Amino acid sequence: MKKILVINGPNLNMLGTREPDVYGEMTLDELNTRLASEAEVMRIDIDFLQSNSEGEIIDAIQSAEGDADGIILNAGAYTHYSYAIRDAIASVTVPCVEVHLSNIFLREDFRHVSVIAPVCAGQISGFGIKSYLLALRALVQK
Amino acid sequence: MKKILVINGPNLNMLGTREPDVYGEMTLDELNTRLASEAEVMRIDIDFLQSNSEGEIIDAIQSAEGDADGIILNAGAYTHYSYAIRDAIASVTVPCVEVHLSNIFLREDFRHVSVIAPVCAGQISGFGIKSYLLALRALVQK
Amino acid sequence: MKKILVINGPNLNMLGTREPDVYGEMTLDELNTRLASEAEVMRIDIDFLQSNSEGEIIDAIQSAEGDADGIILNAGAYTHYSYAIRDAIASVTVPCVEVHLSNIFLREDFRHVSVIAPVCAGQISGFGIKSYLLALRALVQK
Amino acid sequence: MKKILVINGPNLNMLGTREPDVYGEMTLDELNTRLASEAEVMRIDIDFLQSNSEGEIIDAIQSAEGDADGIILNAGAYTHYSYAIRDAIASVTVPCVEVHLSNIFLREDFRHVSVIAPVCAGQISGFGIKSYLLALRALVQK
Amino acid sequence: MKKILVINGPNLNMLGTREPDVYGEMTLDELNTRLASEAEVMRIDIDFLQSNSEGEIIDAIQSAEGDADGIILNAGAYTHYSYAIRDAIASVTVPCVEVHLSNIFLREDFRHVSVIAPVCAGQISGFGIKSYLLALRALVQK
Amino acid sequence: MKKILVINGPNLNMLGTREPDVYGEMTLDELNTRLASEAEVMRIDIDFLQSNSEGEIIDAIQSAEGDADGIILNAGAYTHYSYAIRDAIASVTVPCVEVHLSNIFLREDFRHVSVIAPVCAGQISGFGIKSYLLALRALVQK
Amino acid sequence: MKKILVINGPNLNMLGTREPDVYGEMTLDELNTRLASEAEVMRIDIDFLQSNSEGEIIDAIQSAEGDADGIILNAGAYTHYSYAIRDAIASVTVPCVEVHLSNIFLREDFRHVSVIAPVCAGQISGFGIKSYLLALRALVQK
Amino acid sequence: MKKILVINGPNLNMLGTREPDVYGEMTLDELNTRLASEAEVMRIDIDFLQSNSEGEIIDAIQSAEGDADGIILNAGAYTHYSYAIRDAIASVTVPCVEVHLSNIFLREDFRHVSVIAPVCAGQISGFGIKSYLLALRALVQK
Amino acid sequence: MKKILVINGPNLNMLGTREPDVYGEMTLDELNTRLASEAEVMRIDIDFLQSNSEGEIIDAIQSAEGDADGIILNAGAYTHYSYAIRDAIASVTVPCVEVHLSNIFLREDFRHVSVIAPVCAGQISGFGIKSYLLALRALVQK
Amino acid sequence: MKKILVINGPNLNMLGTREPDVYGEMTLDELNTRLASEAEVMRIDIDFLQSNSEGEIIDAIQSAEGDADGIILNAGAYTHYSYAIRDAIASVTVPCVEVHLSNIFLREDFRHVSVIAPVCAGQISGFGIKSYLLALRALVQK
Amino acid sequence: MKKILVINGPNLNMLGTREPDVYGEMTLDELNTRLASEAEVMRIDIDFLQSNSEGEIIDAIQSAEGDADGIILNAGAYTHYSYAIRDAIASVTVPCVEVHLSNIFLREDFRHVSVIAPVCAGQISGFGIKSYLLALRALVQK
Amino acid sequence: MKKILVINGPNLNMLGTREPDVYGEMTLDELNTRLASEAEVMRIDIDFLQSNSEGEIIDAIQSAEGDADGIILNAGAYTHYSYAIRDAIASVTVPCVEVHLSNIFLREDFRHVSVIAPVCAGQISGFGIKSYLLALRALVQK
Repeated sequence: MKKILVINGPNLNMLGTREPDVYGEMTLDELNTRLASEAEVMRIDIDFLQSNSEGEIIDAIQSAEGDADGIILNAGAYTHYSYAIRDAIASVTVPCVEVHLSNIFLREDFRHVSVIAPVCAGQISGFGIKSYLLALRALVQK
Repeated sequence: MKKILVINGPNLNMLGTREPDVYGEMTLDELNTRLASEAEVMRIDIDFLQSNSEGEIIDAIQSAEGDADGIILNAGAYTHYSYAIRDAIASVTVPCVEVHLSNIFLREDFRHVSVIAPVCAGQISGFGIKSYLLALRALVQK
Repeated sequence: MKKILVINGPNLNMLGTREPDVYGEMTLDELNTRLASEAEVMRIDIDFLQSNSEGEIIDAIQSAEGDADGIILNAGAYTHYSYAIRDAIASVTVPCVEVHLSNIFLREDFRHVSVIAPVCAGQISGFGIKSYLLALRALVQK
Repeated sequence: MKKILVINGPNLNMLGTREPDVYGEMTLDELNTRLASEAEVMRIDIDFLQSNSEGEIIDAIQSAEGDADGIILNAGAYTHYSYAIRDAIASVTVPCVEVHLSNIFLREDFRHVSVIAPVCAGQISGFGIKSYLLALRALVQK
Repeated sequence: MKKILVINGPNLNMLGTREPDVYGEMTLDELNTRLASEAEVMRIDIDFLQSNSEGEIIDAIQSAEGDADGIILNAGAYTHYSYAIRDAIASVTVPCVEVHLSNIFLREDFRHVSVIAPVCAGQISGFGIKSYLLALRALVQK
Repeated sequence: MKKILVINGPNLNMLGTREPDVYGEMTLDELNTRLASEAEVMRIDIDFLQSNSEGEIIDAIQSAEGDADGIILNAGAYTHYSYAIRDAIASVTVPCVEVHLSNIFLREDFRHVSVIAPVCAGQISGFGIKSYLLALRALVQK
Repeated sequence: MKKILVINGPNLNMLGTREPDVYGEMTLDELNTRLASEAEVMRIDIDFLQSNSEGEIIDAIQSAEGDADGIILNAGAYTHYSYAIRDAIASVTVPCVEVHLSNIFLREDFRHVSVIAPVCAGQISGFGIKSYLLALRALVQK
Repeated sequence: MKKILVINGPNLNMLGTREPDVYGEMTLDELNTRLASEAEVMRIDIDFLQSNSEGEIIDAIQSAEGDADGIILNAGAYTHYSYAIRDAIASVTVPCVEVHLSNIFLREDFRHVSVIAPVCAGQISGFGIKSYLLALRALVQK
Repeated sequence: MKKILVINGPNLNMLGTREPDVYGEMTLDELNTRLASEAEVMRIDIDFLQSNSEGEIIDAIQSAEGDADGIILNAGAYTHYSYAIRDAIASVTVPCVEVHLSNIFLREDFRHVSVIAPVCAGQISGFGIKSYLLALRALVQK
Repeated sequence: MKKILVINGPNLNMLGTREPDVYGEMTLDELNTRLASEAEVMRIDIDFLQSNSEGEIIDAIQSAEGDADGIILNAGAYTHYSYAIRDAIASVTVPCVEVHLSNIFLREDFRHVSVIAPVCAGQISGFGIKSYLLALRALVQK
Repeated sequence: MKKILVINGPNLNMLGTREPDVYGEMTLDELNTRLASEAEVMRIDIDFLQSNSEGEIIDAIQSAEGDADGIILNAGAYTHYSYAIRDAIASVTVPCVEVHLSNIFLREDFRHVSVIAPVCAGQISGFGIKSYLLALRALVQK
Repeated sequence: MKKILVINGPNLNMLGTREPDVYGEMTLDELNTRLASEAEVMRIDIDFLQSNSEGEIIDAIQSAEGDADGIILNAGAYTHYSYAIRDAIASVTVPCVEVHLSNIFLREDFRHVSVIAPVCAGQISGFGIKSYLLALRALVQK
């Protein structure tokens, strides 16, 4: 049975209660519940982590080595400058899919660059919560 | 019954026979056949167009208005400079998903910028042919 | 009797039906009809061409040599990157006036640069359909 | 009866006597006379101001509020860096048309950028004195 | 018997009649005739294509695969921004030599960058029509 | 008894009547009255100057030397390019506090740079009229 | 009774003992004591946090939602690159005032850009410890 | 008898009393007296103007036409951004020598660019008051 | 007896097991053992810390003040953007030597810039584990 | 009988023995022998110079004036920054052809710019030793 | 008796015979003769050196230490990139005046930057041979 | 017995007598003597070269091939722009260590970039003369 680790970065714990016009009204708990039930249907083991700390996200990615079969990562604002998270992804053999809820190219300039993109297996962005579901499917069928 | 238009831009007709290390060994015909059978399962009407001409791609996008329910677009190299294709996407109400076979962020600098991204519903890149299948799913469930 | 060629570039055939808040509600046909009647009053021969294809726009500009006395060109998005259209304008002796419906300096950054401006006789932008009428007057009185 | 204010910025008082190959041989007085007679035909009240001082140009624009129905502004070199004049135009409700005698895109690099363009109703450049006449027509028919 | 395909891009059909101070007085027909007679001497099969359309140039390059032994390409203004033509050259195994009539480094800034150079076998520029003759020799002796 | 000079730059005389959504509905006179009464409470002598002219603002700053104990300066658009005003501030020993009504970092790019900031004692921005009151307090307690 | 949260970022715990020529000789404890006594006079509840960790600062900002009426934030070096802290500020409704002890525009280039400025209510910099006192006043009178 | 006009721009009236380590201890009056006596020896008519106003400097340059045989211009901070002063110099036939007291290349970055340099007859900088004397000699021997 | 603190930043705990072609096959434990035995020979007290957290690295650097005689720091990816770590180094009087295992100038562009270099005593890079040994020697002989 | 001077710049004396995958296995002596025999066939006098010194290359170019009918120059790395060599080429009337063995556009970024290109008669690059032979032919037929 | 060393850099030995429209018709020998006679009048010892070699120019500057009282340096194209010559000037205590015959700001972009300017005592450019004479006077009166 | 070649570039012969605050008070002779005695202890053959000439430094690097086992190179200002020296290092198989006396990142911007770094075995900078001693050790233990 495959295992997928879902990592949500800084401020994604505020999902649903803040800026719903940008990020939708679903909370992170609801999103995780939705992913968990989908995973159950697909007979996949799924784990969740949210952290505002760059170091904890790096720890989590490293811990996936030898434990998980894939990582779904929404690195939030760290996407745009954390070369340390990039190096963490490059340091493990577990494939990592970068996801974003919104179309990052429609927003501020600094959000147009992803420093983690070159070391990820692929990117899915703009589909709201469905970005995560598609990533799950992409990793499982790999 | 929903209808999806799949548009492949310049040089994607060379798929499978050239640079298989970058783009894989599947030909465009095989990719289309694969998408067609998937569409049949999902009970979706699907249409295909490949063109090396910027103008023809614009014509195709415009013709989707009032005819198709979604566009899957791999604009090839036009992704990186065709503001005219961008305007075409913005001029129709049909949602358009941008797809790429390879991880464009791992390649030459000029491929890191997509001028059409801000007007697309979302982006899926790096999953080879599966990028198209995920896009199909993303559009249908919308 | 003078002859003026009016060339409209990519996506201007969508005028009136799409993004009316930016481009107004008049269709391209209505715009051409309006220009034709104005031309009749001024006793000018007037011709119209719309194309989404860069190559066809270049062909049209070249064909004006020895045939028309002036070109009114709204190159749409090609304005911002088609050095080939620029070279076509430079390759003919017919004076060409660049027009834009909207104030391009109020919109996205990429629309602030016109690569064809240095080879045009003049620019008129921001007056909606009146941009074309003023261009007609500018060319005829020349 | 409509009233139009024509403002000419720095060094335009040297018109006709200096660099006639760039700016033509007509003096500013002759240009104003020509505009005045055209305005008379169109039954428009017209006023003229020339100043080398950025502050006086700002004063003049502000004074147009509640007094004039349109401004024709050739800001000369201030076009390229006077954000203060830009703010003055934005601070009044009178529409302002930016005009230039020569094609500024054919000249030095610093002349290719207009910081006032985003707050003007439209731009007309490259037609010599006719730029002002077309601007007059554009404002009156508005 | 070797076969060489000579492709001339946008506005090169205007050769000889326009801007002779930059491009010389020889027409494209005369250039082709000259190349054809040289090819005959060298016992090479030679084909000619001129097009203003980016898409048609891509089609032509692709069609050379399995048909021609070399391509001589003067992509005109497309040289400076057509990543789609670049991809076409990269997608075929036929060697392509980039030629220019004039010294592109003596002209406008935008002409100093060739986006197709990295995928061409070599570049020859500045020798007028002789650029083509040297390219022919370079390809044949290869 | 301390003396403070309040200098308001270009277009700040339009306060209250124009763009109230950006700058609020208080006029410059009301703002000055408010500051004057606050100064009276604090037993400070206060002087006011508004000018659209860069030269007059420089004159005023220079005149503060030996006369005032502090300058509160809202240089308006000159903030972003007047190195001459910067040099005036540097040429006097009177401390100068830079104030802005709105958060300049939320507005156009050109407003994000202050060329006078390096020679000012401090900056206060974004608090509307309170920016001036805080500056008054900052200067007096110095 | 209003409550204000004062957050000091990386290395501000070194205040007073290091680089006193840049940051003054007051320690962070002394600064906090000074702020606390001022708050008592103003009858405001005040809380203090210092952390070198980006994640902890984000946690603290999020925790202010529903608990505090204002945040005074000196983000130290994170000011210049932490888009994650920026997003945290944007994710809460509590107004946040950005403060700096020194005039950051007089120091290294990288300190001239604040990535958090666009989402803060205002900025106060250059007044040493008085920057915090002015911020307190600004938030309370809001 | 030749006539030379010496124009000093913004803040040069503060010479001697402010920042003597950068600009020396001589006042502008002393500098002018020194230049006047030197001019007398050389039997040259000499005139002086100092202004903080960009517009007045432009007026002065224009007034030199037909009246003076040379201009010595220290444009102060306007050197670095006043394209209007540049145009004024270009609009007269009187040769203008650009002078600076200090070595502008040793100071802030913004002082390294002179927008008036391309239209001046020559530049002399770094020799303190001697810069003016050398300029006088340069103009007279011309 | 001198004391040296060796700090290894993000992902250096993965040393030896990941990307051995870039970083070599030695693990961090083996590296530390090697350094410890070398230190013993040199009669130096040596301490080790590895952390993926920017905040913890800052804490460690601050704690060295008054405790250690030198810091050897491999800040990993933080080298390229952590101005907070830079400030920490500047806030202590303990000399810090920046080390890198590989030649960072041979790798991705973002690795060519070290934001901590200006505040370090020196840099040693490219010698693999020997970079640390040389740094040890450099600090001890200081 | 025409005379051609072949100048090879820095490190080209290492040809054949170093980096043969980039530059081929032919030594500079063998290349010169090959060129000499070709020149004999074409009845051309040919001279060779190799130098690692920028100054000697300039001396050689200057000495060609009045002595040689053409220069073939491979300036090696000086191609990319020696404006002094550029000036030397511009200072003589002898036509100079720039040659490169490899396709410089396929290599490091700094090799994509040739500062000598604007003053050369033409460029030939990418054909290995044949680049020189084609240059010989280009110069002789001129 | 003072001693001045005049150093002329690359290609200045071609003076008078090449590009007389840019550099005048006087040869370097004539220029030196003119300077020598002027020096004799001023009772100054004068020495001349011309070299195309960067190394020799550095040697000459270094040799001036303890031997000459001033250097007049026209570094030719080395002006724009030779940081080594800059360091040589900085390494001696002899004052160095940078001279140029032509107005370098009227020519190509690369000539607008002088890397040696920050370490020179002053700059004189645009006065032809008189630039040297003014430099002589500047150094002697120092 | 190993042999190491120590190359010092432009202006390093001025060591000790000039700018001792930047480079220390030791002369180059004393530095070499110190290195020679250290080499004797390590039983290494050591050779020294200092040159202000780029060409001579290239000659020296090339001559090391087959003769020396390592190069210690302080290229002085050439570090920052000599791509020719870079190519020389790349053309030999002898490992080269780049050294600098001072911390180049604390000095002018142009000194922050080393064009030779990518082809060197490693870099050591900031340790004064000890930079050379550490390089010696690094090369010998290799």
